[in-house]
Amino acid sequence: MARVVVDVMLKPEILDPQGQAVANALPRLGVTDVTSVRIGRRIEIDFDGEPDLDRAREIADKLLANPVIEDFTVSLAEVPAETA
Amino acid sequence: MARVVVDVMLKPEILDPQGQAVANALPRLGVTDVTSVRIGRRIEIDFDGEPDLDRAREIADKLLANPVIEDFTVSLAEVPAETA
Repeated sequence: MARVVVDVMLKPEILDPQGQAVANALPRLGVTDVTSVRIGRRIEIDFDGEPDLDRAREIADKLLANPVIEDFTVSLAEVPAETA
Repeated sequence: MARVVVDVMLKPEILDPQGQAVANALPRLGVTDVTSVRIGRRIEIDFDGEPDLDRAREIADKLLANPVIEDFTVSLAEVPAETA
């Protein structure tokens, strides 16, 4: 089995109110050295057999990301061993 | 500037209907060799100065993840160079 990870993030020029809300809450935790928080999606796609990055890129483009406001990256990932 | 990435995913035993919906849509794209799709969150935290993984872990635990149903991992990331 092989896993492909698709990371979908809003483009830098698009406002991210959810991330901004987290950033605004940080001083209450005593954290003052954070300049930016951006929240996106991580999608793990498990392939039966060979991982197919081109196929994953097509899935990301058509199903997972909105290319008008989002960028995505596709990468291979280690599948963690099953633990009992 | 340093970037810390927090990946938040539902625990394996928790149902992921959003990922399941994507998995169910894949045959319509002609993709039949995907066994599982799981959708989580990727949070990019930019620190001013030194990245602080312990601090990021605390932020993730208190603000970003629900430890009852979600697991998270914290890692350092390259900050992409600014492009003109």
